[in-house]
Amino acid sequence: MPGNSFGQLFQVTTFGESHGPSLGAVVDGCPPGLELSEADLQEALDRRRPGQSRYTTARREADEVRILSGVFEGKTTGTPIGLLIENTDQRSQDYSKIKDTFRPGHADYTYEHKYGIRDYRGGGRSSARETAMRVAAGAIAEKLLAQQGIKIQAALTQMGDIKAKDTDWQEVRNNELFCGDVNAIEPMQALIKQLLKEGDSVGARIRVQATGVPPGWGEPVFDRLDADLAKALMSINAVKAVSVGDGFDVVTQKGSEHRDEMTKKGFLSNHSGGVLGGISSGQPVIADIALKPTSSISISGQTIDKWGNDQPVVTKGRHDPCVGIRAVPIVEAMTSLVLVDHWLRQRAQNAQVKTETPDISR
Amino acid sequence: MPGNSFGQLFQVTTFGESHGPSLGAVVDGCPPGLELSEADLQEALDRRRPGQSRYTTARREADEVRILSGVFEGKTTGTPIGLLIENTDQRSQDYSKIKDTFRPGHADYTYEHKYGIRDYRGGGRSSARETAMRVAAGAIAEKLLAQQGIKIQAALTQMGDIKAKDTDWQEVRNNELFCGDVNAIEPMQALIKQLLKEGDSVGARIRVQATGVPPGWGEPVFDRLDADLAKALMSINAVKAVSVGDGFDVVTQKGSEHRDEMTKKGFLSNHSGGVLGGISSGQPVIADIALKPTSSISISGQTIDKWGNDQPVVTKGRHDPCVGIRAVPIVEAMTSLVLVDHWLRQRAQNAQVKTETPDISR
Amino acid sequence: MPGNSFGQLFQVTTFGESHGPSLGAVVDGCPPGLELSEADLQEALDRRRPGQSRYTTARREADEVRILSGVFEGKTTGTPIGLLIENTDQRSQDYSKIKDTFRPGHADYTYEHKYGIRDYRGGGRSSARETAMRVAAGAIAEKLLAQQGIKIQAALTQMGDIKAKDTDWQEVRNNELFCGDVNAIEPMQALIKQLLKEGDSVGARIRVQATGVPPGWGEPVFDRLDADLAKALMSINAVKAVSVGDGFDVVTQKGSEHRDEMTKKGFLSNHSGGVLGGISSGQPVIADIALKPTSSISISGQTIDKWGNDQPVVTKGRHDPCVGIRAVPIVEAMTSLVLVDHWLRQRAQNAQVKTETPDISR
Amino acid sequence: MPGNSFGQLFQVTTFGESHGPSLGAVVDGCPPGLELSEADLQEALDRRRPGQSRYTTARREADEVRILSGVFEGKTTGTPIGLLIENTDQRSQDYSKIKDTFRPGHADYTYEHKYGIRDYRGGGRSSARETAMRVAAGAIAEKLLAQQGIKIQAALTQMGDIKAKDTDWQEVRNNELFCGDVNAIEPMQALIKQLLKEGDSVGARIRVQATGVPPGWGEPVFDRLDADLAKALMSINAVKAVSVGDGFDVVTQKGSEHRDEMTKKGFLSNHSGGVLGGISSGQPVIADIALKPTSSISISGQTIDKWGNDQPVVTKGRHDPCVGIRAVPIVEAMTSLVLVDHWLRQRAQNAQVKTETPDISR
Repeated sequence: MPGNSFGQLFQVTTFGESHGPSLGAVVDGCPPGLELSEADLQEALDRRRPGQSRYTTARREADEVRILSGVFEGKTTGTPIGLLIENTDQRSQDYSKIKDTFRPGHADYTYEHKYGIRDYRGGGRSSARETAMRVAAGAIAEKLLAQQGIKIQAALTQMGDIKAKDTDWQEVRNNELFCGDVNAIEPMQALIKQLLKEGDSVGARIRVQATGVPPGWGEPVFDRLDADLAKALMSINAVKAVSVGDGFDVVTQKGSEHRDEMTKKGFLSNHSGGVLGGISSGQPVIADIALKPTSSISISGQTIDKWGNDQPVVTKGRHDPCVGIRAVPIVEAMTSLVLVDHWLRQRAQNAQVKTETPDISR
Repeated sequence: MPGNSFGQLFQVTTFGESHGPSLGAVVDGCPPGLELSEADLQEALDRRRPGQSRYTTARREADEVRILSGVFEGKTTGTPIGLLIENTDQRSQDYSKIKDTFRPGHADYTYEHKYGIRDYRGGGRSSARETAMRVAAGAIAEKLLAQQGIKIQAALTQMGDIKAKDTDWQEVRNNELFCGDVNAIEPMQALIKQLLKEGDSVGARIRVQATGVPPGWGEPVFDRLDADLAKALMSINAVKAVSVGDGFDVVTQKGSEHRDEMTKKGFLSNHSGGVLGGISSGQPVIADIALKPTSSISISGQTIDKWGNDQPVVTKGRHDPCVGIRAVPIVEAMTSLVLVDHWLRQRAQNAQVKTETPDISR
Repeated sequence: MPGNSFGQLFQVTTFGESHGPSLGAVVDGCPPGLELSEADLQEALDRRRPGQSRYTTARREADEVRILSGVFEGKTTGTPIGLLIENTDQRSQDYSKIKDTFRPGHADYTYEHKYGIRDYRGGGRSSARETAMRVAAGAIAEKLLAQQGIKIQAALTQMGDIKAKDTDWQEVRNNELFCGDVNAIEPMQALIKQLLKEGDSVGARIRVQATGVPPGWGEPVFDRLDADLAKALMSINAVKAVSVGDGFDVVTQKGSEHRDEMTKKGFLSNHSGGVLGGISSGQPVIADIALKPTSSISISGQTIDKWGNDQPVVTKGRHDPCVGIRAVPIVEAMTSLVLVDHWLRQRAQNAQVKTETPDISR
Repeated sequence: MPGNSFGQLFQVTTFGESHGPSLGAVVDGCPPGLELSEADLQEALDRRRPGQSRYTTARREADEVRILSGVFEGKTTGTPIGLLIENTDQRSQDYSKIKDTFRPGHADYTYEHKYGIRDYRGGGRSSARETAMRVAAGAIAEKLLAQQGIKIQAALTQMGDIKAKDTDWQEVRNNELFCGDVNAIEPMQALIKQLLKEGDSVGARIRVQATGVPPGWGEPVFDRLDADLAKALMSINAVKAVSVGDGFDVVTQKGSEHRDEMTKKGFLSNHSGGVLGGISSGQPVIADIALKPTSSISISGQTIDKWGNDQPVVTKGRHDPCVGIRAVPIVEAMTSLVLVDHWLRQRAQNAQVKTETPDISR
């Protein structure tokens, strides 16, 4: 409850600072009998890992995850799954300069006011490094969902002014940018090179899609599927906006245009993004998010120090010019965590529900 | 936990269906000693009430709230506050036609799949009528926050294609549309008239702003202030998008532009919307949401019935052509509930935190 | 979370003070499709009601419960069930004398220190009157459990020095004392008469038994079935001890005696009280509790007033000489709430568990 | 929520199996600024550790705890504290015989029914070894409470028929049995020797006392201080009963005897065990528990195997003849966790409460 746990029935608690001894997570609530190995998690972690491509930070972390409990003879036992990644490439010295100075756009200033003390090395707990554990935990969720026929995929759909025209989901994992439009890749790469030269960064947009979600998941009125998804995605570092279905475009739509009409052969459209009244409709669940440009740039800026004095600041060190790229697997992970939780919740209360109404999405 | 409660330390649980005997809420966790009367809640409810203006549904509910517990001799006692509104204007007969037919864009179809049974009268639990209790509970939160110097205000900033140029917060409560741009009011009124004639509806955009929030509120890494706000706002009926600060505009911003630089005199900008690393920065907290056009329109559409047969549907009855108007007080309420909860959480864990760093927003 | 809710998946939140306008509860998480009427709840409430027998307080409350939501056409819909009892017999004037004086053995002094304010009328929130809502909510749980073949029964097993020799569960509801030993009834009645004459009170012991609970319910390591039961029963007013199975007798037992040996025909004993490692074994779940003698007696005692001055105190008004009698239905209710919650939790995580091991209790 | 977390605001989540790679815990919600080192935790762990005395199991675990996060430059930062103990002395081979046979009195049979799969080595998750993490987490709680002037101590008060006449709290940590009566030690030691010879075990009783708790802690009506304590203590392996204050003795008490009368100089007695209406009274909080004799004995017993066939069973391996001894630090830890949680909860909601009433316990 103090903020480092996510989920009600499939509950993930993470711990660890960017430059502390290790990162960890506890996954409590995983049903027993799921085949699970460290390799399952590693595959997801490797996608997120810094140093993965030329376009993300050069910092290299092995990010080797260990399963410490909850798995016996290759299967989950229903007891909590402990996960651990030792921090091997810490280089704390890089960060000594910012010990007493708050980097603008970061959480330094707000952590100082909240806690009165902070692990300033690499952002400590506020570093995106924490999300490695979300990816590991998300991989377990993803595997459970796959058994239910559910597939979660995210893709980079915009970087700065460069938009992916369309997203070919087959293409997404074929390129280092997780972009589904092959024509957008070259311009995006050029933009990154330019940003690296300028020492600047740029924002990004990501789309996530979950197919195969049956109708009926989501708990009105507060724990709606879309509300929990909004929280999950907004909790990712640098995210400033979350939309479902047509998102902000609904502002100018008419009701006669937006409502997804139905026939016995299926829905005629999916403006809703697969969620009606907070409950899945059986159509693909679709959400978009916006990530801000990282504030860790080498262009000097104004800030203050711990005592309130004006100070210039330049963030040296290894940073991504577009954090949106690495965020793609994190978005998939958080979406998986939301869905698996609602699967279990639906099973608890409504296990025996029967209806004559067909699932028109099938 | 089953979905009808919001908040951790200031916990609101609502119950009730649109056409059931009554709507209710329990507010658990309100600190003792707050002066509170039914009039405090009624004032907020009256702003939300249908039949309030020519531009919202003609349905008239007295919406008179009773305080059933938790207040003694005019003050809260620290025990749970029970709230109740009796449903007086039910007109169930209006809804008998849609008993077995799913209105497109509504929760009828998804409730059927989730529960196998539903109170079809007026949408039952999925009706926006439920939000009356959020407004009542939010009014308590708002009063607590006002004592901390915090002010929460929401305004209609766009209806269809008509945008408010700027929001004059003094102006917002002076007009029936809760719009902060006096020049936008007439075009908006004209649009509503036209929609009423056409039997159609349109979407809307709302902005909410909280001033006076001190730095340090929000619980990383999952229960961030902006993540909880995203959930709270996305849980409101018809909301399809939530953004904080510059929202989706950050996609095309550079890091050198977006990061809010700091000087001892204050922040130089507020692109972040008052939240850094999930924790309030002391600047105004700003969020925007998009509301879809209501699907309750009198233009015929295609749908299916309970057994999967194609059926035409026309939603008769009393409905708003733009639900965004009535949503304004609900947005204020949900924002208040998020903030009051994080105030208590901050007080629990960090009551004794001291820092030499000044609050540069003051 | 602030203390007035019980259960994780079948969550009951109560509100209301002894002499406030009403008592209420919200039951969130009840599966849809359960036939439910007010009569179902009333039957349980009537058993608990004061003024029921000559041996409980003469205060008469109609205790008529209304279902405000969550039930449609006689069946639960899966949405929260609102429950309400209006307080009709308040006689506030009885309590004016104790406005500023703390009754020893009551919560007056501790509420004052906790909240700094309290509804002193009849104990306000700390009154056992609150438990009426637990009984109403418990009746819903009991009905769900009955469909699973589970039966919960409690009985008075000791009043002062008078012990029930054995408990004949058929006999329990045949007498006003809920005692399963017909030979103990007369001595108990005589004791009550004597206590009424003396203006004193006495403690009691209650046993509760749940039969038909399948093996596998309970969530180690903290939310064990017996741990949740201990909390549930200890949360009942006046309860000072909870034991499971052989309880305190295990202190002097040998391992060779206590361990319940197993054969394919079943367990050879039930020293464990139906719980092993926090999980139900399939044997009857058995717990015992001790209730203190009520402190509301007419024998003068020493206490202090609000400002710390010594004051004599006599509790006038209508009070039970042995609160254990009326506690019997409350014990059944709380036990039902624990079991129904663990049923849903088991269903969520372990719905698909298969084992070759037979249930040797069947 | 799935059962492996304890506490609301000071939340402890444990993971790990007896013979898995490691045991761990996450402590979320510890206020920042507390001086904390591994030595602080080790001291408590060493008291609990098997192989500590001749009277507990010969199994030797170094039980060296590492702090993985949440502490920076010797102080807590307010972020989650990760704790880890690597299992070094696993000897899995000892347990191969019981792979398919359920030890009576253990959780083997119930885990099989719950999960359909279990780590049978040493009891897996159901082993008392898990409580090592509770002790480590409890040590953090204890340190926080000490700063508030609160002291928690537990003692062995009975082993089999041998009762400690009185508990001298100064004496408790001077002997390997944590017994506060020097005269009881020799008979207890003799009993243990005899049990080791017989291959049998015996139960125990433990008392725990918390002094310095101010009046006002505890959250009615469900999360009462005594209810949470009952749950916490009942969740310890082998515990079958929990009582507060006079416990089961209240059954035969009169109200005139039991109610703790008050004068301006203080309470005249403490029958209530420091809790009234679920809220601390300022008097010492006192609870007693009963621990069953361990079922791991070398006397042959009847049981069944995984397929329901009758099997004899002898538990070889290293086991305590009286688990009550080692449980003493665990009882202290769980009591500390309950109190620290209620301290934070009280601070959240009632931080600003003022009363004219003196704390008569001071």
